[in-house]
Amino acid sequence: MFAEIITIGDEILIGQIIDSNSAFMGKELNKIGIDVYQITSIRDDKQHILDALEEAKNRADVVLITGGLGPTKDDITKHTLCEYFNDTLQQDENVLAHVEYLFKKYIDTPISEVNRQQALVPSKAKVLMNQYGTAPGMWLEKDDTVFVSMPGVPYEMKGLMSNEVLPRLQKRFERPYIIHKTILTYGLGESAIAERIEIWENELPSFIKLAYLPNLGRVRLRLSARGINKKKLLDTIEEKVTSLHTIIGDIIVGYEEDETIEVRIGKLLVNQGKTLSVAESCTGGKIAQSFTGNSGASSFFNGGAVTYATQSKIDILGVSENLIKKYSVTSTQVAEAMALGVKNKFKSDYAIATTGNAGPNKGDGDVEVGTVFIAIATPDTVFSKKYVFSNLRERTIGKTANKAFELLLGELL
Amino acid sequence: MFAEIITIGDEILIGQIIDSNSAFMGKELNKIGIDVYQITSIRDDKQHILDALEEAKNRADVVLITGGLGPTKDDITKHTLCEYFNDTLQQDENVLAHVEYLFKKYIDTPISEVNRQQALVPSKAKVLMNQYGTAPGMWLEKDDTVFVSMPGVPYEMKGLMSNEVLPRLQKRFERPYIIHKTILTYGLGESAIAERIEIWENELPSFIKLAYLPNLGRVRLRLSARGINKKKLLDTIEEKVTSLHTIIGDIIVGYEEDETIEVRIGKLLVNQGKTLSVAESCTGGKIAQSFTGNSGASSFFNGGAVTYATQSKIDILGVSENLIKKYSVTSTQVAEAMALGVKNKFKSDYAIATTGNAGPNKGDGDVEVGTVFIAIATPDTVFSKKYVFSNLRERTIGKTANKAFELLLGELL
Repeated sequence: MFAEIITIGDEILIGQIIDSNSAFMGKELNKIGIDVYQITSIRDDKQHILDALEEAKNRADVVLITGGLGPTKDDITKHTLCEYFNDTLQQDENVLAHVEYLFKKYIDTPISEVNRQQALVPSKAKVLMNQYGTAPGMWLEKDDTVFVSMPGVPYEMKGLMSNEVLPRLQKRFERPYIIHKTILTYGLGESAIAERIEIWENELPSFIKLAYLPNLGRVRLRLSARGINKKKLLDTIEEKVTSLHTIIGDIIVGYEEDETIEVRIGKLLVNQGKTLSVAESCTGGKIAQSFTGNSGASSFFNGGAVTYATQSKIDILGVSENLIKKYSVTSTQVAEAMALGVKNKFKSDYAIATTGNAGPNKGDGDVEVGTVFIAIATPDTVFSKKYVFSNLRERTIGKTANKAFELLLGELL
Repeated sequence: MFAEIITIGDEILIGQIIDSNSAFMGKELNKIGIDVYQITSIRDDKQHILDALEEAKNRADVVLITGGLGPTKDDITKHTLCEYFNDTLQQDENVLAHVEYLFKKYIDTPISEVNRQQALVPSKAKVLMNQYGTAPGMWLEKDDTVFVSMPGVPYEMKGLMSNEVLPRLQKRFERPYIIHKTILTYGLGESAIAERIEIWENELPSFIKLAYLPNLGRVRLRLSARGINKKKLLDTIEEKVTSLHTIIGDIIVGYEEDETIEVRIGKLLVNQGKTLSVAESCTGGKIAQSFTGNSGASSFFNGGAVTYATQSKIDILGVSENLIKKYSVTSTQVAEAMALGVKNKFKSDYAIATTGNAGPNKGDGDVEVGTVFIAIATPDTVFSKKYVFSNLRERTIGKTANKAFELLLGELL
């Protein structure tokens, strides 16, 4: 069975916001065996919405709609839904009580008529209560296709999906199993991998698809199996992964389920009772943020220093001024001194340090733009590696963080 | 005139990656007066691609396609383009030379037949050279609609857009002007603003559209004007913004062109010859990363400390242990001591500090989940504010960073 996602709002089309909602919805639908056939982002325009609803209905069993449900007049979704379902708006007492409660508890300004209108919903809609906001979700059906409309604010949409939409879809539809297994590799490009595994790939059964996902210096291989026999899917994927290991085991670093490499590192550290700190120059806080963005970071992450200016490497991390003069601030020696310094200051077992020039201009250092040194301090030792990435700042920062995670993971495994 | 964007790849539909390419393309197209009518994300499936191309052709003058151009066999875009344009693949000598050059210069593994096949392009296509990768862009036309196919790797697509696609579109089409002005507000919700500006909004001319964009505690108001008389558009927007100031000047903090609040803060600091450092607990590096993600940060950003564990607030920032015992680690007193501590250690003029509990569980502190203290240290003083956000971690971290930027901006203006 297929779902489609329709996101409504000019802000996506003019590039003012990035559509992260659809990725969340796609992932969650997949987990319960529903394939997303298409994601369509459309304008705040009545006819465009009507066209998109009708086209999606002809292709999909479920249509999830986000956006255009706020209290203000640029939001036309609700009225357009009424037109599409030949319906009228009526007040829902539960929603009204909820809006009044939210205003009383959290919002300084008094409730207004505009806010109260959030309680108006199409009379044919099953109302889905929105725990985190005033605009409710709405469940409607037409010709056996289910339409669910949700607000576009990410945490409101996520709450509605998890608490209301997904459980109802699971009850409403019989679904096949969809199982993904993503293999993380490093050190080889897409085409070099493709050549090595060509025979293996050609022998994959038709219910398993392989995709190559290259990103910032590492290629992920995703196997996707779908069918009604869950055990067969799991067994076949397991068997194919085992045989893949005999071919490219040298470049496989692990698997990605839902979990990122930062989460894996965190789990390994917690299991081993060890802690981590980070000293960041060119990555400027990105590595720290990657760890602290996940809950539970406090059980292994002691903290970090963003020593962006050269002087702060001396003042905060205790890197010797002479060392910097002798080898330059972007050098293997300084990277290692930073790692040892932050490990010492933050009293951690492991440490990561980065120093380099992410560009686009030369900074305090004297190395070519894109040159980065990454050091890893462990309980016993310290080592560092030099990389030359590119003159694209965002790319160099991202690749540096990814390489640092890989190097640390290698030590923990 | 309208453009459409088609992104090809199962990885978007299953939520494995977020489609950030489309936002970039939408923004850049808008700058040269091209409206994006629809963004469609579709499967790696020949018939689905053919359908999407045909539907887009009927609605748009330009169709930009990304994804599905890598060297591996899960990529079917090129073959499908041949079918759609009734064409065959032929080798392009320039592309072949470029692929061979890239392999020689940057890639360890030897070039293979798979890599050489990147030089095969539809014979009717105008080849657009890809500076950052092996897969070229392709420009094709059918029934007066322009189709441009680009690889999905973000920096390759961006390079092609900036260097090849946008300049060619500007030559190929006459375009109207599209001008956006986004007004940043704080402190009032969407509906409260809507009520205050209702009369003003109703009096907007038909060529100006208003949109409300609420996000993590601040509402942006976007005015979009389109037409052929650029001066009229600019003058009318200017006039409307001036009259808006007389109505809600108390909640307007500034404007967003392409620039974020972090970039504005950076520019103000550089102009004033001042520097900044940050001490982050609950935001865990996000604030530092927001500044260092932009080039030129080294001219005002001295660095920061991610003092996640309580002990590190004492060791690194010199916050007094007694102060923490007396007031708790999440308190206005500790936030202010952190700001003064980091300002002192990093020898900066201004400093931001955050301490709080982003949840979902209680950490070292004893405050309710979602409670955050933000302190700002200036050359003359220090102050702090308390906020209670929510029990959603990501939301609390994002709101805390945004509030911190607002507070600092207020001091700099």
